[in-house]
Amino acid sequence: MPTHIDQLDTPAVLIDIDRVEANLTRTQTYADAHGLKLRPHIKTHKLPRFARRQVELGAIGITCQKLGEAEVMADAGIEDILLPYNILGTEKLHRLRRLAERVALAVTADSLVTIEGYARTFADAASPLRVLVECDTGMGRCGVQTPDEAVALARAIDASSGLAFAGLMTYPPAGAPAAARAILAAMAEALRSAGLPPTMISTGGTPDLWSAHETTIATEYRPGTYIYLDRYQVAKGVGTMDDCALTVLATVVSSPTPDRAVIDAGSKALTSDLLGLSGYGTVLGYPDAVIAGLSEEHGTIDLSGSALKPAIGERLRIVPNHACPVSNLFDRVHLVSADHVVATEIVAARGRVD
Amino acid sequence: MPTHIDQLDTPAVLIDIDRVEANLTRTQTYADAHGLKLRPHIKTHKLPRFARRQVELGAIGITCQKLGEAEVMADAGIEDILLPYNILGTEKLHRLRRLAERVALAVTADSLVTIEGYARTFADAASPLRVLVECDTGMGRCGVQTPDEAVALARAIDASSGLAFAGLMTYPPAGAPAAARAILAAMAEALRSAGLPPTMISTGGTPDLWSAHETTIATEYRPGTYIYLDRYQVAKGVGTMDDCALTVLATVVSSPTPDRAVIDAGSKALTSDLLGLSGYGTVLGYPDAVIAGLSEEHGTIDLSGSALKPAIGERLRIVPNHACPVSNLFDRVHLVSADHVVATEIVAARGRVD
Repeated sequence: MPTHIDQLDTPAVLIDIDRVEANLTRTQTYADAHGLKLRPHIKTHKLPRFARRQVELGAIGITCQKLGEAEVMADAGIEDILLPYNILGTEKLHRLRRLAERVALAVTADSLVTIEGYARTFADAASPLRVLVECDTGMGRCGVQTPDEAVALARAIDASSGLAFAGLMTYPPAGAPAAARAILAAMAEALRSAGLPPTMISTGGTPDLWSAHETTIATEYRPGTYIYLDRYQVAKGVGTMDDCALTVLATVVSSPTPDRAVIDAGSKALTSDLLGLSGYGTVLGYPDAVIAGLSEEHGTIDLSGSALKPAIGERLRIVPNHACPVSNLFDRVHLVSADHVVATEIVAARGRVD
Repeated sequence: MPTHIDQLDTPAVLIDIDRVEANLTRTQTYADAHGLKLRPHIKTHKLPRFARRQVELGAIGITCQKLGEAEVMADAGIEDILLPYNILGTEKLHRLRRLAERVALAVTADSLVTIEGYARTFADAASPLRVLVECDTGMGRCGVQTPDEAVALARAIDASSGLAFAGLMTYPPAGAPAAARAILAAMAEALRSAGLPPTMISTGGTPDLWSAHETTIATEYRPGTYIYLDRYQVAKGVGTMDDCALTVLATVVSSPTPDRAVIDAGSKALTSDLLGLSGYGTVLGYPDAVIAGLSEEHGTIDLSGSALKPAIGERLRIVPNHACPVSNLFDRVHLVSADHVVATEIVAARGRVD
């Protein structure tokens, strides 16, 4: 087994465990100071080891986006899971019922169609399935649009024998926490007025993590990327490059001109996510290098503005724009402390598409 | 086992085997008519079954971009493999030597550093490693820039006891075949003048597939995406939507407004590759629907210009912008004929990052 990162073949994903621990501890400390409960989203790491660590440090449970991810985490001993997704389809609903029999589970719905599926599946269940109504607080993705719709869905949940109305869930857009807060408050108020007070109000997102305590009506917060951070989160001011725990180790395989280096990490390693940024990642130690283009197996670095030129064969560490989908592209990741490889972990919840 | 696509859980990848067969046959027939040799790139499908079928239909061998893919294909009985990549690093070079002992193998180089690694590794090999010089014909990625550089590298290969200079390799940019041809011809001419005539001249790319016969000096052509086609290739005029063999089956999980539907296929299913196109795929049966945004597990469809509105729970088939990275995101794909599931295949060469 390799004991130093120089012995690893490339491309490879390195996870700095000291930074992971610092990121987790910093966030849990912040949450504790404000009486906030954390329910971390495991999509970023997809590793049972880190999910268990998040709970150990004080998280009240975890968030999974996919039933398949939740099944992996239940197998790993996690006991409290929120699936903030509309689960539809016979096969998935059967799996959901089986999952609900072994962990404390809550799901979301933003339509009667989804609620009817849950109600059919849990009609004869020993304990009711907790269902939150998803509301759109500006993201423009899923979620009810008005307080009236939220009340109507809460009533439908409440009227179903196998279901329990549990509250509200939202994924707010980055950078607009005040506006999202106002929408969420109006939804909650309408539910209280209708006699269906939300016991859970779940919100999240790493970009606005440090203002989470201002959403005082929330009962829990679901950050995901905070464990690794990435170039996008640094751009949003959540941390610095020195806090980024996930890097892609790549080798310079070609340098056809003095201003161009090509690495063996393309979109199959870094993903083509731009998230509004310029370039596909930050090359550590080469502040003026720009990862200008990716094909599947090549990353093309523009060195025209960089006095430093990496040599062919040189190994580079890259902070990707978006850490989460990188975790989904690698069967294994290497946990490192400084340049030492501490462990190699199978990404157990990778590729759980359904 | 599901026998109809309605029984499959979503998101799922469907491969229409009748279209695959038609695409493969059409291309092989075209190649045969022009005396062209095909060496298909397996990165698109990553399936031993289809690699074998390509060879059975007349391909002279296959192309793999990664050593790990080549190892999978060698295990599957493929006997002739081109790896058009600079292979660097001790571990990879050891694997390359082992691979060369069991298949007819050729690799590429565009620098002395790469050649030196090959030379060291194969110095005492029973038969020499065939090495092609990669040249840049306008792609701006890897490859030597001038005929003089090509000659210098060919000489270095020729002077190494464990290596055999085999010719030229290029991946030309889409839409500029004439310019690429001229550069390639100049490289070949310089090599002939230097007494190192290229016996292999390998070019490729599906976008300019139907003008492949105009590059008369090429000895082989490496199309990849032609087996499935995709939205990008249709935009380039290589085929029509009715030729596209790979679709992503997704379910509408939400419709928060009449003009918005959300599907359970996001960037983890469709990838965030745009390739210059508008939107992240074509929704079959909904010509005016626009897949306007993707997050990891959600695809947001803008229906503002569409009179047809898919219902929650409805299943949609989507032609992705780029088929190849989709194959890399799913552990298995379903082979279908019309709406019938014929087989489910493990994507054996998925995730071979090194």
